[in-house]
Amino acid sequence: MDKLATAAAALDAADELAPLRARFHLPEGVTYLDGNSLGAMPVAAPQHMADAVTRAWGERLIASWMDDGWWQMPVTLGDRLAPVIGAGPGQTVVADGTSVSIFKAVHAGLSLKPERTVIVSERASFPTDLYIVEGLIASSGRKLQLRLAGDAGAGLDAALGDDVAVVLLSHVDYRTGELLDMEAITRKVQAAGAIMVWDLCHSAGVVPMELDAWNVDFAMGCTYKYLNGGPGGQSFFYAARRHHETARQPLTGWWGHAEPFAFETGYEPAHSMRRFLTGSQAILGLKAVECGIAAMEGVSIAAVRTKSLSLTGFFMDCVEELCGGHGLSIVTPRERMRRGSQVAIGFEHGYAVVQAMIENGVVGDFRAPDIMRFGFAPLYLSHADVLRAAQVMRDCLEAQVWTDPRYQVRGEVT
Amino acid sequence: MDKLATAAAALDAADELAPLRARFHLPEGVTYLDGNSLGAMPVAAPQHMADAVTRAWGERLIASWMDDGWWQMPVTLGDRLAPVIGAGPGQTVVADGTSVSIFKAVHAGLSLKPERTVIVSERASFPTDLYIVEGLIASSGRKLQLRLAGDAGAGLDAALGDDVAVVLLSHVDYRTGELLDMEAITRKVQAAGAIMVWDLCHSAGVVPMELDAWNVDFAMGCTYKYLNGGPGGQSFFYAARRHHETARQPLTGWWGHAEPFAFETGYEPAHSMRRFLTGSQAILGLKAVECGIAAMEGVSIAAVRTKSLSLTGFFMDCVEELCGGHGLSIVTPRERMRRGSQVAIGFEHGYAVVQAMIENGVVGDFRAPDIMRFGFAPLYLSHADVLRAAQVMRDCLEAQVWTDPRYQVRGEVT
Repeated sequence: MDKLATAAAALDAADELAPLRARFHLPEGVTYLDGNSLGAMPVAAPQHMADAVTRAWGERLIASWMDDGWWQMPVTLGDRLAPVIGAGPGQTVVADGTSVSIFKAVHAGLSLKPERTVIVSERASFPTDLYIVEGLIASSGRKLQLRLAGDAGAGLDAALGDDVAVVLLSHVDYRTGELLDMEAITRKVQAAGAIMVWDLCHSAGVVPMELDAWNVDFAMGCTYKYLNGGPGGQSFFYAARRHHETARQPLTGWWGHAEPFAFETGYEPAHSMRRFLTGSQAILGLKAVECGIAAMEGVSIAAVRTKSLSLTGFFMDCVEELCGGHGLSIVTPRERMRRGSQVAIGFEHGYAVVQAMIENGVVGDFRAPDIMRFGFAPLYLSHADVLRAAQVMRDCLEAQVWTDPRYQVRGEVT
Repeated sequence: MDKLATAAAALDAADELAPLRARFHLPEGVTYLDGNSLGAMPVAAPQHMADAVTRAWGERLIASWMDDGWWQMPVTLGDRLAPVIGAGPGQTVVADGTSVSIFKAVHAGLSLKPERTVIVSERASFPTDLYIVEGLIASSGRKLQLRLAGDAGAGLDAALGDDVAVVLLSHVDYRTGELLDMEAITRKVQAAGAIMVWDLCHSAGVVPMELDAWNVDFAMGCTYKYLNGGPGGQSFFYAARRHHETARQPLTGWWGHAEPFAFETGYEPAHSMRRFLTGSQAILGLKAVECGIAAMEGVSIAAVRTKSLSLTGFFMDCVEELCGGHGLSIVTPRERMRRGSQVAIGFEHGYAVVQAMIENGVVGDFRAPDIMRFGFAPLYLSHADVLRAAQVMRDCLEAQVWTDPRYQVRGEVT
């Protein structure tokens, strides 16, 4: 056994989270490093979904809205998820898509700073964040402005000013995997009198965070990545309790009404987290999210973080050891405090390499122009998986797979 | 056999849609008259959902976004649904909740009439329609105004004027079941220079309509009522092709971008129906919608309408025959052109009667202050079901169930 294999075996032997692997189904023979895009299926999902379909919908029909808790699911799921993001109860809901939640959060922030006109974000944001802000501004009837700071928090000081209402940042960069200091940035933004909105899509479930303790205003994120909530599952949305009576958002559907079953003509927002809800949710989507949340319950996020850093660190070691000399550049920061749970590697022929790796059972993904992206979900990956991925990458590099026509036609996945 | 039983048997014997009952699962011993709230489960749903969960998510993971058509589902489902609403291809999507779609549609209408400031709707609208308009106005930064016309189209002439940008009306009233004349009202609204938006929640799947031929601008509706798409399933959204290059809506997420996988910083709306999309959808919700749409494919909406009118008409006959003398008032119009597929009955003790009927296997629902609501889904109901419902109602009235404490505590369902 070579040095890396010995190291992998030792790390796996000491892995206290290894038993969690049994909570997930993974395809035979596949090393799945795309859990940062779509998380693996919890083994409980098929039965849980079959029950929701056959019994709750098929047999109980309309009665399930109350008897099966459908009506309350955005709130009950939010409360079950809350410990993962460091939130007390009553401040998190699961509802609507991430883009819709971003729209609500930025509006809510603006409603608290009516005299300010600037929304700060970063060029490196996942594009939907910027697109949503753009659409919000165009429809606002106000002279609002999107100000793009330098990436990775670097330009934030220069961007802040007494005209800034809301700062919207990604906790972990979707391409580079760089992690921002949530506590320090939130403090800085609020010291400048602005509202802090965090996009947690690439950190929730793998990076410890304390939304309450760090005084975050609003946050939202995907449930279908590291939270394993099923394809396209509804987003989560956090609003600090201090904003529940004052913040407003424009998607004022009946689920956010103070008395939704009074069927009144005028809207009165609920005096709780429910004011951030809009309307009926695809319950079967929420049922899948429930499986993902259940699969994490009782798991220490600190332990997840320790393993995440071990997996990503070991991957970078393996890549350096096995794949040197091919012109790769590791884009993700080496510093533990500055990376999330993915490793991004820049390479001219990255698209072809990722495709060839998939053909050989190692699933990562690619982001233009040249980023190979590998996500490490600590709940179901081992260091042996990591080593195998690096070995397959090495084989693809040595075979110069980019000269193979099969790997030159571009398609894209989400 | 008495007269009504004879009539029911004759009507059922002549029912050409009777074989469709086999496409749906209904609980044993239940007469389900709440399909206007949550449609019955198609028998194909458990297998279809299990495949989506176990194979597409569990085994194929991220590859299913393209290989299994997830990415295209809003568009492909929209096109499959389009014949039900009289729409040609490329003008309908299935995505987001109904309230979100209303927000998009009203905004899209306003974007086409920037110099006009009034949105007309009716007090009798399902409240979320009015709430969403209220939230839209409050967030618009403009002096927009919601003008409530008299109900059932009566006050429309007085409400229209050259300040009206958008008219938002429900095709079928959610309480009374009254049906509006879509073609005539659309013509009248457009003659006044306004944009017509139809809420089809209570008509899609049971009332024939020709959105293209009648020149409707925008429309949206639920998939979980008469379209049997599962609890809270995503809404459908229609935009006439002539608006695809010009209308804007503010929920400009990446799924509506002209090149979603280019990950550009700036937003450019797709030059197609996709510009009305926002972001990732709960795929398992869409998979259930797919079951509902599939269960209707090949079914003539004209035949559905004929049976719907027969069921609702026969129900009113039975109620008059069996339940006279108890002070009920049938609120739904008797005229065939003026009713949808539900029958609303006003009764002082309606809440208790509906609860007692449910206890006795006939599921309807109740809307404050005094409306008993019974929906008739022609795909899975028979005239024998209708007669049974009226008989159970009669029994409940004769037993004066409102004197029973069990039926006096109010709870509500959606």
